[in-house]
Amino acid sequence: MDASDALAPIRDRFVLDDDTAYLDGNSLGALPRAVPGRIADVIAREWGELRIRSWTESGWWTAPERIGDKIAPLIGAAPGRVVVGDSTSVNIFKAVVGGVRMAGKGCTEILVDATTFPTDGYIARSAARMTGLAVRPVEPARIADEVTERTALALVNHVDYRTGELNDLPAITHALHSAGALAVWDLCHSAGALPVGLDAHHVDLAVGCTYKYLNGGPGSPAYLYVRESLQERFESPLPGWNSHADPFAMDPGYTPADGIRRGRVGTPDILSLLALEAALEAWDGVSIEAVRAKSLALTDFFLECVNAYVPPGLVRSLTPHDHQRRGSQVSLACSPQLSAAFAQGAAPVAGQVMDELIRRGVVGDFRHPDVLRFGFTPLYTSFADAERAARVLGEVLGALPDVAPGAAGTGG
Amino acid sequence: MDASDALAPIRDRFVLDDDTAYLDGNSLGALPRAVPGRIADVIAREWGELRIRSWTESGWWTAPERIGDKIAPLIGAAPGRVVVGDSTSVNIFKAVVGGVRMAGKGCTEILVDATTFPTDGYIARSAARMTGLAVRPVEPARIADEVTERTALALVNHVDYRTGELNDLPAITHALHSAGALAVWDLCHSAGALPVGLDAHHVDLAVGCTYKYLNGGPGSPAYLYVRESLQERFESPLPGWNSHADPFAMDPGYTPADGIRRGRVGTPDILSLLALEAALEAWDGVSIEAVRAKSLALTDFFLECVNAYVPPGLVRSLTPHDHQRRGSQVSLACSPQLSAAFAQGAAPVAGQVMDELIRRGVVGDFRHPDVLRFGFTPLYTSFADAERAARVLGEVLGALPDVAPGAAGTGG
Repeated sequence: MDASDALAPIRDRFVLDDDTAYLDGNSLGALPRAVPGRIADVIAREWGELRIRSWTESGWWTAPERIGDKIAPLIGAAPGRVVVGDSTSVNIFKAVVGGVRMAGKGCTEILVDATTFPTDGYIARSAARMTGLAVRPVEPARIADEVTERTALALVNHVDYRTGELNDLPAITHALHSAGALAVWDLCHSAGALPVGLDAHHVDLAVGCTYKYLNGGPGSPAYLYVRESLQERFESPLPGWNSHADPFAMDPGYTPADGIRRGRVGTPDILSLLALEAALEAWDGVSIEAVRAKSLALTDFFLECVNAYVPPGLVRSLTPHDHQRRGSQVSLACSPQLSAAFAQGAAPVAGQVMDELIRRGVVGDFRHPDVLRFGFTPLYTSFADAERAARVLGEVLGALPDVAPGAAGTGG
Repeated sequence: MDASDALAPIRDRFVLDDDTAYLDGNSLGALPRAVPGRIADVIAREWGELRIRSWTESGWWTAPERIGDKIAPLIGAAPGRVVVGDSTSVNIFKAVVGGVRMAGKGCTEILVDATTFPTDGYIARSAARMTGLAVRPVEPARIADEVTERTALALVNHVDYRTGELNDLPAITHALHSAGALAVWDLCHSAGALPVGLDAHHVDLAVGCTYKYLNGGPGSPAYLYVRESLQERFESPLPGWNSHADPFAMDPGYTPADGIRRGRVGTPDILSLLALEAALEAWDGVSIEAVRAKSLALTDFFLECVNAYVPPGLVRSLTPHDHQRRGSQVSLACSPQLSAAFAQGAAPVAGQVMDELIRRGVVGDFRHPDVLRFGFTPLYTSFADAERAARVLGEVLGALPDVAPGAAGTGG
């Protein structure tokens, strides 16, 4: 399968060692080879020699929009609709408050994906508190039924961080629009792994991080998308000087910039931005459709290998088998039988299993209470990685004394 | 003067060339020598090899508090009161909203430094709008007279970015407290240049950037200070998952962390944070009192040289001569006579003068409409730099045909 994989050569654009099957790119993407040299030059020459001149001469000032335009094609956005900077949480605040301010006067609530990554819910509640609205958690599949004319917007995760389930962005966006509400999507776990189609599906606002499938580095800056027709009405709750129409006029009165620059806040974080820009070079000549095809092939193959290698009944996939509902990770829940075999009290079983996998060179992660997560980054994950991960998982679980088929653990 | 300067050897901790007198460290600090090697290791080993493990094994997760504790002694704060992350503008939003939420119920207004750097005013207005208060601009020197029992807080710049004037932090803080209001200080232009004494003067909240006198690099993350006795009451408007008491519990309900970690928001930006941490090594063994003494000696000497070299009447210092009221920069306003000699229409005179200084190796900057700014970073600025800057300024201005003493330019 690796021999016939057209994306296989892209793996050489990353720093990876063959001792490790790195399946945690959905948490922190691997290091792209273009980054170290680029950042060495940014530090030594652009900062060290040109110093202040680099704000203009090295293009620092315009980096947030320029890099936004490089992310745009990966999420189906035209140029001028994406700006990079600040954390995902800060961008969620901009998007939710900005969305509420564009919504109808009679709106009283925000819907939030009930299974959301927690920061989305925390920030949405803060945004609701500060704009006088209420938050109502709703399962993504129920949004079409639950949205009302009092709904300002819904904040939804495109892919669920825990289960890897892909939510139906076109249908949910359409349902929200039919009720007069805005659609705000969190793309953290989908951007760079599958086509998003923001413009095509008329998404209103979106945010996403860049350190997972976009490989921008630890804590690299997030991005904000604002639909073109809404940009003029977008009022940021964080109107920093970088979002002013003429920042260097040092005008005491605030006039927002035209276009997506309005989503900027303070002085952009240049080292991290330019590391991200170099990281995005790994996408040269790669289509997101090819990435999606490989992602599904990888997760299909991994699930098949898990079935083949892991004694039955010990783990159960939380990730849908239906391609239409699957992101680019596989989450396996540990069975109560496993808990019995493992439990010594302190650490959760899934944590103990993952620790053992990591000791054996298979790197995924775990999430409370019982979930093993394996992320598949089509730019660098091989089918051999997928086979190895399932095989080592089978070895670790199969070697447990109490988990032979039919054995019932007693705990202790 | 350089020969007897005890801080002179510290200059070797920075990458500087003798061709340039770099007097723009109040905008972007020079590159500390410790940074390139440290960041090369962070990228190649911590990210490239350890990848996800570095969040714990390389101390990434705790970097915001750890680096906060390294900035703390420079601004007179005990450990556990400073956290690093996000831009200055975002931190102003946290501080102002957090401050309003701690203020008395009957408060209706926020005072803002009338000559503030613009972002402070823009963000304060947004914070006021979102908390139902009004903003009233007040000259810093008038705050003691203008504060009332309806004032929630005042947001004041410690040093004015334009004039270099140092505001009286102890007296203004005391006056605010006497009226029951909180004091929120912006330390962008003072931290690293002079003693601040946050704890000693009972400042409530403070923010500052790290890319000026702290030399953290372009757009390096800012910091938030919250007085110890207020931390328990601090409610962030940006309660991202990093500020949760147990972030990895992925709890849908928000419980804020104890202490200053409550000021965190999203995933911290590791490359920029660790560049800043390396930059702060330049302070090893340096006292902020010694820095202040050298700063005043440098600016005194520069003003003396300007008097000696520049034909009279062409520039006028906006920076107070009184040491108690002077930060670590000198701002010179260009006279109308100069405008007459220079003006061809488009570019402001101060901009044209600064361009010519930069061509001759003297790097400061200009601010609209007529201000030449020269920043003095005691860690690396020499008295020779100060002398050269004044001399070159004298050469540039003295060579203008229309500016001989007594000549009256006619414009055109």
